[in-house]
Amino acid sequence: MPELRRRLAKELDPMLRDKTGLSRTNRFICALILASLLMTILRTEITIYAGREDLFLIVDLVLTGLLAIEYGLRVWVCTENPAYRSRLAFVLTPSALIDLLAVLLILFSPIGNQGFLLRLARLARILRLAKLGRFSLAFHSVTQAVGRRAYELWLSLAFSATLLLVSSAFLYLIEGGIQPEAFGSIPRAMWWSVATLTTVGYGDVYPVTAAGRLFGALTAIIGIGLIAMPTGILASAFSEAFQERCRHNTAGTDDPMHPPAEQSRTTE
Amino acid sequence: MPELRRRLAKELDPMLRDKTGLSRTNRFICALILASLLMTILRTEITIYAGREDLFLIVDLVLTGLLAIEYGLRVWVCTENPAYRSRLAFVLTPSALIDLLAVLLILFSPIGNQGFLLRLARLARILRLAKLGRFSLAFHSVTQAVGRRAYELWLSLAFSATLLLVSSAFLYLIEGGIQPEAFGSIPRAMWWSVATLTTVGYGDVYPVTAAGRLFGALTAIIGIGLIAMPTGILASAFSEAFQERCRHNTAGTDDPMHPPAEQSRTTE
Amino acid sequence: MPELRRRLAKELDPMLRDKTGLSRTNRFICALILASLLMTILRTEITIYAGREDLFLIVDLVLTGLLAIEYGLRVWVCTENPAYRSRLAFVLTPSALIDLLAVLLILFSPIGNQGFLLRLARLARILRLAKLGRFSLAFHSVTQAVGRRAYELWLSLAFSATLLLVSSAFLYLIEGGIQPEAFGSIPRAMWWSVATLTTVGYGDVYPVTAAGRLFGALTAIIGIGLIAMPTGILASAFSEAFQERCRHNTAGTDDPMHPPAEQSRTTE
Amino acid sequence: MPELRRRLAKELDPMLRDKTGLSRTNRFICALILASLLMTILRTEITIYAGREDLFLIVDLVLTGLLAIEYGLRVWVCTENPAYRSRLAFVLTPSALIDLLAVLLILFSPIGNQGFLLRLARLARILRLAKLGRFSLAFHSVTQAVGRRAYELWLSLAFSATLLLVSSAFLYLIEGGIQPEAFGSIPRAMWWSVATLTTVGYGDVYPVTAAGRLFGALTAIIGIGLIAMPTGILASAFSEAFQERCRHNTAGTDDPMHPPAEQSRTTE
Repeated sequence: MPELRRRLAKELDPMLRDKTGLSRTNRFICALILASLLMTILRTEITIYAGREDLFLIVDLVLTGLLAIEYGLRVWVCTENPAYRSRLAFVLTPSALIDLLAVLLILFSPIGNQGFLLRLARLARILRLAKLGRFSLAFHSVTQAVGRRAYELWLSLAFSATLLLVSSAFLYLIEGGIQPEAFGSIPRAMWWSVATLTTVGYGDVYPVTAAGRLFGALTAIIGIGLIAMPTGILASAFSEAFQERCRHNTAGTDDPMHPPAEQSRTTE
Repeated sequence: MPELRRRLAKELDPMLRDKTGLSRTNRFICALILASLLMTILRTEITIYAGREDLFLIVDLVLTGLLAIEYGLRVWVCTENPAYRSRLAFVLTPSALIDLLAVLLILFSPIGNQGFLLRLARLARILRLAKLGRFSLAFHSVTQAVGRRAYELWLSLAFSATLLLVSSAFLYLIEGGIQPEAFGSIPRAMWWSVATLTTVGYGDVYPVTAAGRLFGALTAIIGIGLIAMPTGILASAFSEAFQERCRHNTAGTDDPMHPPAEQSRTTE
Repeated sequence: MPELRRRLAKELDPMLRDKTGLSRTNRFICALILASLLMTILRTEITIYAGREDLFLIVDLVLTGLLAIEYGLRVWVCTENPAYRSRLAFVLTPSALIDLLAVLLILFSPIGNQGFLLRLARLARILRLAKLGRFSLAFHSVTQAVGRRAYELWLSLAFSATLLLVSSAFLYLIEGGIQPEAFGSIPRAMWWSVATLTTVGYGDVYPVTAAGRLFGALTAIIGIGLIAMPTGILASAFSEAFQERCRHNTAGTDDPMHPPAEQSRTTE
Repeated sequence: MPELRRRLAKELDPMLRDKTGLSRTNRFICALILASLLMTILRTEITIYAGREDLFLIVDLVLTGLLAIEYGLRVWVCTENPAYRSRLAFVLTPSALIDLLAVLLILFSPIGNQGFLLRLARLARILRLAKLGRFSLAFHSVTQAVGRRAYELWLSLAFSATLLLVSSAFLYLIEGGIQPEAFGSIPRAMWWSVATLTTVGYGDVYPVTAAGRLFGALTAIIGIGLIAMPTGILASAFSEAFQERCRHNTAGTDDPMHPPAEQSRTTE
């Protein structure tokens, strides 16, 4: 029994696994979660769901049952990992709580059909995706690169926010009287301004006067800079992060034959 | 009294502060300015403002009162900073003038309701955001990176302007007769051209003939290059700026454990 | 005869050619394929095709005939290349099979006019473009740079997919009741979400409520980050790839006078 | 007289000027050309032109007169520059021919009002902008960076073209029967495809079926990659170009106090 638990723990807990990557069991769990997520998404579409209620119910129950078993097994084997002092400590970790919540909420899903509780449950099931992140420590390298330049990225966001305010205020002053529905207030003008600065440009609202178009064009052109700035910051962050990877690497190194020669030299 | 003034000066004037970052008082001032800005924005939206005129008036007066007190205190303590030769020298600095203007204009705000003066006052309050920049010298590093490549960025703007002219002229020649409202003159065609080159694409105007669409497609494709160019220039500027940061750094260094080893070596 | 075959093989098989670049024969073949592709595209447009059926048929037959001859010659000379153990081995390579299929399918093209088989044939002819890739090993350098950062690019795709799900779910909850046609289910809301996150913004569907617009604006702003992330990753990948080019270069080196001095030094 | 010619040549011919930048005379010429261009643009807009025909005519004649004098002076002083073997050699250079053409065509402008010849003349005047490029050798550095990666940029264009074809073909197959006006042929579907891949997204045409939207969403997502690729290539090109600037610099060095230490070291 302890032997079985130890082997199961290695299968279920990525931290105890010797090799990198996901174990077969965890790959299966991932597939289950994605399938469950897909079911939740498809169920909202009435043209797919209508007439297949029973099929959806059965698949949902099977998936939830399997995930409930997985949850139980994880609680059982968690004592193998010295990181958790007790079973309760494991159960109270955020990811374990999300798992429990997702399994519990599924019970209300067939009952309160189309209700608010159900919708929240669906959202919770979507949030379960966050669980997948736990399987891999590798996104650390990307988030670290972003984190290193967090200050500059916030600054470029602040520039964007300022520009958003200024362009909204101008359009409100220029076109507020002509198109009250679209530009009648600064918050309304902001909807146009966001669509323009992000270059989405739905085209539901747009300036119609010469002055409005002149300012709108200026906004669109400056918007390019607001896209270029975070992109440039991130590009330089990634360049730096990948050059330093070998030192702090937590992610899997994908080019082990290129040791960072100039770095090891400087530390001599 | 001089002791109080010295301590207050350290709280209010970021240049006299020993530590980096904002003092508690200045953080509170920032919150006040942002709240005042939010009030100005929300007040323009009739569905929010209607029925809450008194609430807006009270909040506005309280905020303005606090900012007026802050202005007064700053004038009082400015003599502590050797950068200002006299009280008058401080009062005439642009940022102090903006502060004064913003405080003064609020008085006209409840009177000339929906008037032009009021609108300008609102804009002035928006401009007050610029004051926040003064609290931090740190955006220097980003603006320096942009400044270093100012020449190349202007050049890529000139390329864009040329392309804007050429594509507008072509669309005017091709579709001017068919869609006179949209392409009947080069300035009109420019509205479409800006929307296309910046990839905003409102869709209020677009070519309809085969030739117009062919040229429009070409414009859209070249537009990608016009976005890629400043982005690439900025990316390389940031890469360079961050590598040199430790030498000229005016911004707060966020990774002090990585001294720029190869640079110190070259200066030996 | 063997002498002719050897010379023809050097003309037709880019692997046997001594010099870099395409031989004259292969450049001609490329032109034929592009012409054939252009014919296929133009033929679908009724305003171009109508009244020119015979012209299209003749050009199609001539092009197919020439490509059939090319196919035959390639089968004949393939024994010169030691990479293929037998004629059958060559015939069964994917690119040779595509060539054969394209030549064969053309026969059904004039018969089953506007039929499904014909459409597939057209698609097959489009797929033939893939054949051009075989002529050059040079895109290796770009694909290698992309391949090096494949992991990070997949991760940024996973972030995008998560954001896509979350924003679709929110908009479904907020606007599902008001605009059932556009946001009545998560799959429907996804259409809006993709258009917004990629900044395409068709404008056929967009949020209309204040909450929907607030969340839509947030989605658009985060969408900028999702564009900036892969761009930054690719920029750093290309920087690295081009620096290392001289070592692993399979593509044509375009700046041979700049040897990677610091790399040769580290290997001493 | 030769003394006057020599001094005038230094003013008019940027190649003979000792200092960098434009001479006062050439700055004035630039202003004249831009003014002439602005006149051409504004004249096409009937709401601006109507009632001001005389004003436009006078300004046009004055501008053209001044540019004609400039042309004459340039022909006179060109012998000072050893680059031109004779006056005729100078007159036959492309930029001198454009100047002459622009001056000559202005004569037809007031006559054939709104005629085709006039429109071409306007376009010629727009082309005159190219003349400005001659004043500065500095855009060399940007074009060189682009030129270095020309091969990779063409490759990314080829990828884009392939994707354009494939997505157009798919949408034609899926939605050709439902929306014949928008997707009834591959060339028609291309208009949608370009708008989507470049993320312009006018919204005049878009898929309406589930399959069409699925493929459209896929196209939009892949389109992000097509924007990221050239941006990344250009970013790495600029990084490299700016690092090498001090060696091959033809453009004005804007940071002369940072000699490329590591490069001078490797050449020892």
